[in-house]
Amino acid sequence: MHEFELIKNYFQKLSKKSPSALNLNDDVFFDKKNRLVVSVDTYIEGNHFIDFKKPESVIKKIIRSSISDLICKGVKPKYYFISASGNKKNFSKSNLSKISKALNQEQNKYKIFLSGGDTVFSNKLSFTITSIGFANNITYRNKAKINDDIYVSGNLGDSYLGLLVLKNKIKLNQRLKKYFINQHFMPNIQLQLTDKIKKFANTSIDISDGLLADLDKMINSQKLSYKLFLKDIPISDNLKKVLDFKKLSKINYISNGDDYQILFTASKNKMSIIKKIASNCRVKLTKIGSIQSYVKKSSIIDNKNRQISLKNKGYFHNF
Amino acid sequence: MHEFELIKNYFQKLSKKSPSALNLNDDVFFDKKNRLVVSVDTYIEGNHFIDFKKPESVIKKIIRSSISDLICKGVKPKYYFISASGNKKNFSKSNLSKISKALNQEQNKYKIFLSGGDTVFSNKLSFTITSIGFANNITYRNKAKINDDIYVSGNLGDSYLGLLVLKNKIKLNQRLKKYFINQHFMPNIQLQLTDKIKKFANTSIDISDGLLADLDKMINSQKLSYKLFLKDIPISDNLKKVLDFKKLSKINYISNGDDYQILFTASKNKMSIIKKIASNCRVKLTKIGSIQSYVKKSSIIDNKNRQISLKNKGYFHNF
Repeated sequence: MHEFELIKNYFQKLSKKSPSALNLNDDVFFDKKNRLVVSVDTYIEGNHFIDFKKPESVIKKIIRSSISDLICKGVKPKYYFISASGNKKNFSKSNLSKISKALNQEQNKYKIFLSGGDTVFSNKLSFTITSIGFANNITYRNKAKINDDIYVSGNLGDSYLGLLVLKNKIKLNQRLKKYFINQHFMPNIQLQLTDKIKKFANTSIDISDGLLADLDKMINSQKLSYKLFLKDIPISDNLKKVLDFKKLSKINYISNGDDYQILFTASKNKMSIIKKIASNCRVKLTKIGSIQSYVKKSSIIDNKNRQISLKNKGYFHNF
Repeated sequence: MHEFELIKNYFQKLSKKSPSALNLNDDVFFDKKNRLVVSVDTYIEGNHFIDFKKPESVIKKIIRSSISDLICKGVKPKYYFISASGNKKNFSKSNLSKISKALNQEQNKYKIFLSGGDTVFSNKLSFTITSIGFANNITYRNKAKINDDIYVSGNLGDSYLGLLVLKNKIKLNQRLKKYFINQHFMPNIQLQLTDKIKKFANTSIDISDGLLADLDKMINSQKLSYKLFLKDIPISDNLKKVLDFKKLSKINYISNGDDYQILFTASKNKMSIIKKIASNCRVKLTKIGSIQSYVKKSSIIDNKNRQISLKNKGYFHNF
């Protein structure tokens, strides 16, 4: 069973009495009266990360992935809780020192505080991160409007290339290897944009499952579709070089997830304010397409103005 | 490494900048300004519960165990988040129906709301529950005073006997079997006491690891010790019958954890208000001993006024 189906069939009804749960259909929980925003995510070895050879990298990635859920809704993360399950080898003194150091670096970088959690013995390594922030309002999912522009922050695809390098599925020189692995473990999340998003975005989400999967999620209960232009989807110079050199097709490298960039829509008249904020915050914000009525099918247009057919839309958990 | 040592050596320093984390040394996180109280706990198959043959029982137990952390501090739980990791068999349609039904019953019983979470595929079944409540104040650990009376709510030991039944380590008739198994999975947590605790308790904790282990935790940074009277430690009529009939020693059955009763200390002059509240709330509250200066050793006194020497103080995670 697809995880969405599972939640819809068995858990959504349990959240009905609490409007703050947003029907379990958004990235976060938001209790407006108490200004409370919460996100809970679990990360498992062999699933969300390949192994624990570099504990500091894994820890940085899962912290960023967790707080990214708040940041993309315009909410500054403040507290995080970490529940760690693993064995003696996972939590050796050497690994614990690396975990502690990595957490300290993330705390300083993102102004967040370790606030509690749990440590339990298990033969399967996993972490559950609860991130909490406070806000008067958030940007929700399912609030896109027809003719909205679709934007994305930063670059896409670097993290996926890092994963291919880690799995030995692509050969690159040392410099590029290091670059993509770093991008995979330490996505460049856009904390500086947090306070600004609500000024221009109608709806937003962070890209964890993949551009197309998350675009679908962002408008999943709306009678809308999207049109994207492949050439406009932002990628790094390094990724561009690799695609050109190896003659790889861009479409296969920009929607595989783990980007933790912000995807949002905005009314056309917000274009100038978005440009200004991008420049002031030194964040790359790129218009990649627009929202349209659902009578048209969602599509991606390639450089020759042809529609691309899509198979793999992203990553999901099936039970 | 003992889990306390692990937290102390590697994580406590990370929480220093956030006074709300209470030094990772209390049952909950409490942000006084935002009135926010949070508890995070992970439960793993084969460790916190034997198996998943009765999903509804396991789910009820972990929900009660989680909200018990708030209730024992005088905080009404409001929201809970459930992050579930498991395989197709764990989350079959039949099991999901049972989980959903059990959650619904707990929601109605304790007035709590499912507010979010995560579902991920794993070969190891585990749940992380985040419970959240709001309060102007809480009862803390480490606030006991010399000569305080020590109290406990309800009865102890029934849950442990239920565990022995489940492990086929004790033989009982069907009626008693059912009673103890029910007590194990559905501990009688004291929601009705929540609003009252702060009126009389100086310090409090819920009994999850075991009476003595949790008593140690409740006063762990204080230069104090305790004196308990074995005969005063409350047990159910059913447990009394079993101990008498099988000639088992009470001391071995009252400090094995999973009781989820409230342990607290109170000044001697609170005795009459405690009796009154116990009667009004229909909760059994029993004085079991007193707090003393650390120059005396902690002790339990048996029926013949002799000091009992103790080996197993409770359940801990070692790495």
